[in-house]
Amino acid sequence: MEFILEMPKPYGGRLVEAVSNNKEECAGCPSLDINSTIDMATGIPIRNAYREIMSIAYGFFSPLDRFMTREDVESVISERRLPEGWIFPLPIIYDVSEEEIREKSLKEGDRVQLNLKGHPFAYIDIEEIWDVDSKDLAARAFGTPERNGEVLRKALDQKHPGWQIYRNMKNRAIAGKVKIINEPKFRDPYNRFWITPAESRRIFKERNWRTVIAHQTRNVPHRGHEELMKEASFCGDIEPCNAILVNAIIGSKRMGDFVDEAILEGHEALEKYGYISQKRHMVSFTLWDMRYGSPLESLLHGIIRQNMGCTHHMFGRDHASVGDYFDPYATQKLWTKGLPSYGFPDSPLNVDKGLSIRPVNVGEFVYCPICGGMVYADTCGHKEAEKFSGSFIRGIIAEGITPPDAIFRNEVYDVILKWWAKYDYPFVNRRYLERKEEELEVYF
Amino acid sequence: MEFILEMPKPYGGRLVEAVSNNKEECAGCPSLDINSTIDMATGIPIRNAYREIMSIAYGFFSPLDRFMTREDVESVISERRLPEGWIFPLPIIYDVSEEEIREKSLKEGDRVQLNLKGHPFAYIDIEEIWDVDSKDLAARAFGTPERNGEVLRKALDQKHPGWQIYRNMKNRAIAGKVKIINEPKFRDPYNRFWITPAESRRIFKERNWRTVIAHQTRNVPHRGHEELMKEASFCGDIEPCNAILVNAIIGSKRMGDFVDEAILEGHEALEKYGYISQKRHMVSFTLWDMRYGSPLESLLHGIIRQNMGCTHHMFGRDHASVGDYFDPYATQKLWTKGLPSYGFPDSPLNVDKGLSIRPVNVGEFVYCPICGGMVYADTCGHKEAEKFSGSFIRGIIAEGITPPDAIFRNEVYDVILKWWAKYDYPFVNRRYLERKEEELEVYF
Repeated sequence: MEFILEMPKPYGGRLVEAVSNNKEECAGCPSLDINSTIDMATGIPIRNAYREIMSIAYGFFSPLDRFMTREDVESVISERRLPEGWIFPLPIIYDVSEEEIREKSLKEGDRVQLNLKGHPFAYIDIEEIWDVDSKDLAARAFGTPERNGEVLRKALDQKHPGWQIYRNMKNRAIAGKVKIINEPKFRDPYNRFWITPAESRRIFKERNWRTVIAHQTRNVPHRGHEELMKEASFCGDIEPCNAILVNAIIGSKRMGDFVDEAILEGHEALEKYGYISQKRHMVSFTLWDMRYGSPLESLLHGIIRQNMGCTHHMFGRDHASVGDYFDPYATQKLWTKGLPSYGFPDSPLNVDKGLSIRPVNVGEFVYCPICGGMVYADTCGHKEAEKFSGSFIRGIIAEGITPPDAIFRNEVYDVILKWWAKYDYPFVNRRYLERKEEELEVYF
Repeated sequence: MEFILEMPKPYGGRLVEAVSNNKEECAGCPSLDINSTIDMATGIPIRNAYREIMSIAYGFFSPLDRFMTREDVESVISERRLPEGWIFPLPIIYDVSEEEIREKSLKEGDRVQLNLKGHPFAYIDIEEIWDVDSKDLAARAFGTPERNGEVLRKALDQKHPGWQIYRNMKNRAIAGKVKIINEPKFRDPYNRFWITPAESRRIFKERNWRTVIAHQTRNVPHRGHEELMKEASFCGDIEPCNAILVNAIIGSKRMGDFVDEAILEGHEALEKYGYISQKRHMVSFTLWDMRYGSPLESLLHGIIRQNMGCTHHMFGRDHASVGDYFDPYATQKLWTKGLPSYGFPDSPLNVDKGLSIRPVNVGEFVYCPICGGMVYADTCGHKEAEKFSGSFIRGIIAEGITPPDAIFRNEVYDVILKWWAKYDYPFVNRRYLERKEEELEVYF
């Protein structure tokens, strides 16, 4: 019986590490500038492929080492697996315009240099140039209500950020392996939290963290999140998980979200001010323009955090979801029983070439005045216990009311105030998004 | 990969159930009165074998179905297993005096009726009558520093309650299978908490509790215990454990302990007043005069709670320990790596005929004024966090000071007051022990 867990192997067997600092690798190659994907209706930037290049090249998406071919994409959409058999839930496409192809006379077999904000950054060895039908792609990338009725309650549409990303892709794609030839530097505060899978595994070993539970976040942590992390970290095996890896998804945001800087520093504050000891806590991020694919997105989260060395992953209600497209429990079902319509007749842990990171499905935390704090809703037997929703909290903050300690730790709220002062608003607005696209998280 | 747990089978494959309500089974048999074992030095009752009969006959100790033969005892002491191979950590002996044997002309092959407080209660089918060397038994029952130096720091002596029980045994023993022929009734409040392994398994199924974590207790729960139960219950498998089974060990006590009635009703108060919902909490007990055998006792706890249907068991520092005889971490080591000197080269889960209940080794909970409550010591990063010891708490209570809500829930403290009023003292004293032996937990 295996009841003592070890750090899982990288997914697919080894970490992709495709980073050299040798610009000469592209000497004489044609080059393209990386431009953001723009929501045509609003003009707002919703994706920058540099994030996908970073996540591929540093191994977050291992074993994926490339932008996908047409065959890859078809395999992913129909099986949610790469043609090699490894699970991969969503199309990763480097889309370009016909003009770019023509202007640079790009053809299969070429190496094309990709420039970021005017600097050489990475290259793709072009294996295939293919036509993207963005309308069809957006319609099928997340499944369809007809085929995936067990999960999808209605077809995705323009209100869905992931649908928007695929729908606004250009009509040609370059497929092939990726390599970074010029590592960018991270701006403050991102630099403190940039931990690649190789580095994360090294740190886990150095700190003797055998079991680590991943916490997916796109929020400044309120007391409910804090309690969730503390309690879920008790899952472990023969002892509570040795540590919690907070891994924020950093990339394009939705209006009204907390800003990325506050999310990272908010989690850092919990550690810095002793609410969760540094001895069992680490804050990190992955660059990715979140697709909000709920159960599909959760598979990507599992892949990323297994690659980072985690043994467990928290999954709540409405994981990586938005609107009411998905069954709120789709992710928890997927990880425990499977979702046959997506090609998983059993949990992704129990299928061929499956994942190793273990799901920890958790319910909600509520504030109970009788218990005197945040408690697990299933544990508390008081009628007085109440959930405070994210929008309630954002409402309080936007009104300029300092939330009570029962909702936010003061030191965490101070982080919100700090970034509010910087951006003149506590939440993501159009100006933040445009500025983010202008500055990105990195520089050269 | 098996990562979704199911209720484990009873240890040894099936539950012992040796209870008839047919006194005729003893028609014409010789009979003995069950007398308590008395500490010769103090005259205080320290054990009543009726508790062992109850625990055997109702299956708590399955697969043990008998009082041990000499061979059984030698096997248990040398291998910590029954001759059939099942793990059993401590000798279970029905000791009698030479006079009793002679007076009733008892011999092997006889069925002897056992009377409790003047009522027919049970019988033993005598397989063997053997000589007990109580001095040797007490010296070896828990191992010796010479042989078990990895765990035992010094030889047990008259200050050790388990040593006392074996040392004060009479010099003959009757071995053989046990059956109850006349079920006693439990006094209030024990009656509410008497849940046999068969019944506990039935309730778990009825309530859809797939995973249940056992909490061993001999304390009225303070806030630290409450938090331990709540947080350790997050271990589970794909989701937090569905429930917590509080299982108190009820039997002879040490001076200064909380009284048994307050222990049970204190845990009940947590449930009754909503601090831990009835939907995932159940309070029960096992009759047993605790031997304080630390890692050995933990094996018995594992057997009992596996028989009750639990998937997990909390083990803390100094589990079932007393004084400084045992390495404080011996139990946690046993369950994770084994204790070779006791015959366990690996965890009892990983050996032949091993147990299935999983260990959850937990550290300490402390009060942190900065976090604002009880927190896991390994999680909290504040210097201000402080442990309050059991003796500190008992000190406060004995002084007549109402402990703050941060230490005891008011409703739990009310339970202490209730039994304080009844017994004129909040803790076990000589009078309580004598009265307990006089009344027992049962009547006919």
